[in-house]
Amino acid sequence: MMRTRRLVETAVMVGMIGVGLAGASTAALGAGGDAAQEGPQKPLVLRKQGSFFVGGQTESTGSNSDITINQMYVQYQIPEGAGQHLPVVMIHGCCLSGKSWEETPDSRMGWKTYFVTRHHPVYVVDQVSRARSGFDATIFAQVRSGVLPPSSLPGIFQVSHQSSWSIFRFGLSFGTPFPNGQFPIEAVEGLYQQEIPDLNALLPTPNPTYANLSALAGRLNGAVLMGHSESGFFPEFAALAGAAGIKALITIEHNCNTLTDDQIAALAKIPTLIVFGDFIELFPQWVTANANCHAYADRITAAGGDVTFVHLPDVGIFGNSHMMMLDKNNLQVADVILNWIENHVEAEAEH
Amino acid sequence: MMRTRRLVETAVMVGMIGVGLAGASTAALGAGGDAAQEGPQKPLVLRKQGSFFVGGQTESTGSNSDITINQMYVQYQIPEGAGQHLPVVMIHGCCLSGKSWEETPDSRMGWKTYFVTRHHPVYVVDQVSRARSGFDATIFAQVRSGVLPPSSLPGIFQVSHQSSWSIFRFGLSFGTPFPNGQFPIEAVEGLYQQEIPDLNALLPTPNPTYANLSALAGRLNGAVLMGHSESGFFPEFAALAGAAGIKALITIEHNCNTLTDDQIAALAKIPTLIVFGDFIELFPQWVTANANCHAYADRITAAGGDVTFVHLPDVGIFGNSHMMMLDKNNLQVADVILNWIENHVEAEAEH
Repeated sequence: MMRTRRLVETAVMVGMIGVGLAGASTAALGAGGDAAQEGPQKPLVLRKQGSFFVGGQTESTGSNSDITINQMYVQYQIPEGAGQHLPVVMIHGCCLSGKSWEETPDSRMGWKTYFVTRHHPVYVVDQVSRARSGFDATIFAQVRSGVLPPSSLPGIFQVSHQSSWSIFRFGLSFGTPFPNGQFPIEAVEGLYQQEIPDLNALLPTPNPTYANLSALAGRLNGAVLMGHSESGFFPEFAALAGAAGIKALITIEHNCNTLTDDQIAALAKIPTLIVFGDFIELFPQWVTANANCHAYADRITAAGGDVTFVHLPDVGIFGNSHMMMLDKNNLQVADVILNWIENHVEAEAEH
Repeated sequence: MMRTRRLVETAVMVGMIGVGLAGASTAALGAGGDAAQEGPQKPLVLRKQGSFFVGGQTESTGSNSDITINQMYVQYQIPEGAGQHLPVVMIHGCCLSGKSWEETPDSRMGWKTYFVTRHHPVYVVDQVSRARSGFDATIFAQVRSGVLPPSSLPGIFQVSHQSSWSIFRFGLSFGTPFPNGQFPIEAVEGLYQQEIPDLNALLPTPNPTYANLSALAGRLNGAVLMGHSESGFFPEFAALAGAAGIKALITIEHNCNTLTDDQIAALAKIPTLIVFGDFIELFPQWVTANANCHAYADRITAAGGDVTFVHLPDVGIFGNSHMMMLDKNNLQVADVILNWIENHVEAEAEH
C-alpha cells in the first residue's frame, strides 16, 4: 500500500536581529529555517533518543504494597554531530508539562526540536508530581477512606483560560490580544489543552525536582539547566543542591528568590542568563518579578559572576509573551539563548 | 568546548524465528539491529516530529474561570521514507503513560523508536486523565473545600511493586523471577519509576479516550491502533465510536469484552491482531483473559473478519511477560506485529 503525505513546515521566518550578544547568526538553522526559502523541512538526524527517570524513593502504602515516589521523567534526543555543544535540560512551568517545549499550538517547531537541530543534546523533564513523573496519591486515598480530613488534601492549582491571558501577557483583557503580540492567539485552545493540574503543593521541602535536576546534570557530565516561570529558579536551586554537573543557569521570567550571601557566592561561579519578554511594564506582578531579578543579577555581578540579563525589547525583539517558547518568533528568541550558551559557557570552557 | 561521547546501543540480537506469519524478515532493521554486528547505532532520520492534543471540552469552574478537560496528548515522529507504511498509534496500559513505548528500563530501544526505524509514523498518546493529558481536578477542590464529601473522591489506582510481579508475570512470587523470563528484571526499578497513579475512575462514560482515538485516526487519514493491557480493547472501542480512519486493531493482553452481535459485525470489517505472551497458564486471571479473547476472536471469525491470534510461545517466542514491549526480546515481538501489519493490513489495502 503506497501512501504519500506532503508535510509543509510552517516555521516562521527567522531573521536574527542584532541582539547585543556576540556571535549572533542565522547560519545553520537546520530544520528551523524558513519554509518558503528552504523548501521542505530538512530531516532531523538523531544519534539516539529515549527516556528514563532520575531519583525516587520507595514508599510503603501497606503490607506488601510499595510504590515509588518523587522520581523525575526525562525524555532526550542526541543529534548527530553532538559533542560540539553542551546538553540542555528544559524544565517547564506551572500547570504545564514537558509538552511546552515541543510543537507550538499553531503547529510550528518548538525549542526541543530546534535545539537538537543546533546540535545540542536535549533533555526535557516533567517536574516531580507532574505528568509522566506521576505523583504520590497516598493522601488522596487516606482522605477518601476517612483516615485524614478533607483539609489534608493539597491545593491543586490549574491556570484558567482567563488567567492565562493576564499571567502570560496575551493582552490587558481576556479576548483582546495585544495587536503586536507574538503569541499565536488564533491557536490559544492548543495552550489551554496543555494546561494541567499542578500538584506541587503535595511535595516535600525541598522540592525533590531540585536534587533530581542536579543528579541529571551529573549523570550527563555537564549540562545547561533552563527553567521557565514556576521553574525559572529551579536551575539555581539545583545548583545549590549540588553544582558539580551544572555548566550554566538559564532563568526565563521568574521572581528570582532572595538568597543568602553564601548562596550568591556559590551561584556566582556558574554563568547565568536571565530572560524577560515584552509588555512587562503593563503588569504589576511582572514589574516586581523583573525588578527582583535585576537585584539578583546585581548581587551575582557584585560577587564576581558572569550574569547576562536580556530584556528582549532592549535587543530589538518585540511582542513576546511569557510563553516565549511558543510565540511566533520563538526560534528568534531561542537563538538569543543558543548564542549566549556558545559565547558565555562553551567558549569560556575552552580557555 | 569540544566534547565527545561514546554511545553504545545495547540492543539485543534480533533473530526472527519463524512465526507462522508470511513475510517475516530481519532485513532493514535500521537502528534496531544488533550492535555487535552493525557497530554504532544507525542514525534515526525524521521528516518531522512534534506533539498536539486531540479533543477536550471547556468546563467552567466558577466565574471567569474556564478550564479544558478530557483532551488527549499525542506525541509523534514521522520518519524519512514514510508513505510506505501506515501510522501506528500506541496506547499505554494501567498506571503507566506513553513512556512505556520508549526506552526500556535497561536502556534498550523501545517500540516507539523501533517502529519509526521500520518507516512507520508513530503517534504515542497519554490516555485522558493521565500524564501530559492532565485530569479534571474539580472534584478534589470541591472535597477539600467541603462542598462534596470525601467519598466523592475517585479511587486512584496505582500498581505496587509487589503486584507488578504477579500482574505482569515476572515470577510466581515477588523477588523470584522466572529463570527463562524475558523481562529485564535487574532493571525493574525503572519500571517502578514509570508506574504512576491511574485516575480513570474519574472519567465520564464512555471514556473520552475512545472518541479521541477515533478522531486521531481520522485526522491521520488512516492509522493502526494498538492498545495494551488496560487499553488493550481501546482500539475496538474507538472503532465502535467511529471507524472511518481505523485501518487495524491490535489488542495486546486484554480481557476482551463481550460485545453485541451488531458490534461484532462492525468490528469484523477491520483486521484484528491479538497477542499474548508466555506463562499464561500459571496465572488464573490471565487464563481467563486469554480464553475470553479466544471467544472474541471466534466471533469475529464467524462474522467474516480477519483476526490473527498470536500466543507467542506457539510461534517459537518464549519467556515474554505482560510488559513485552520492555522485554529483552522486545524487538522480536515488535517484528511479529510489524509483519502482521504489512501482510494483513497494508497488503490487503493494495488489492
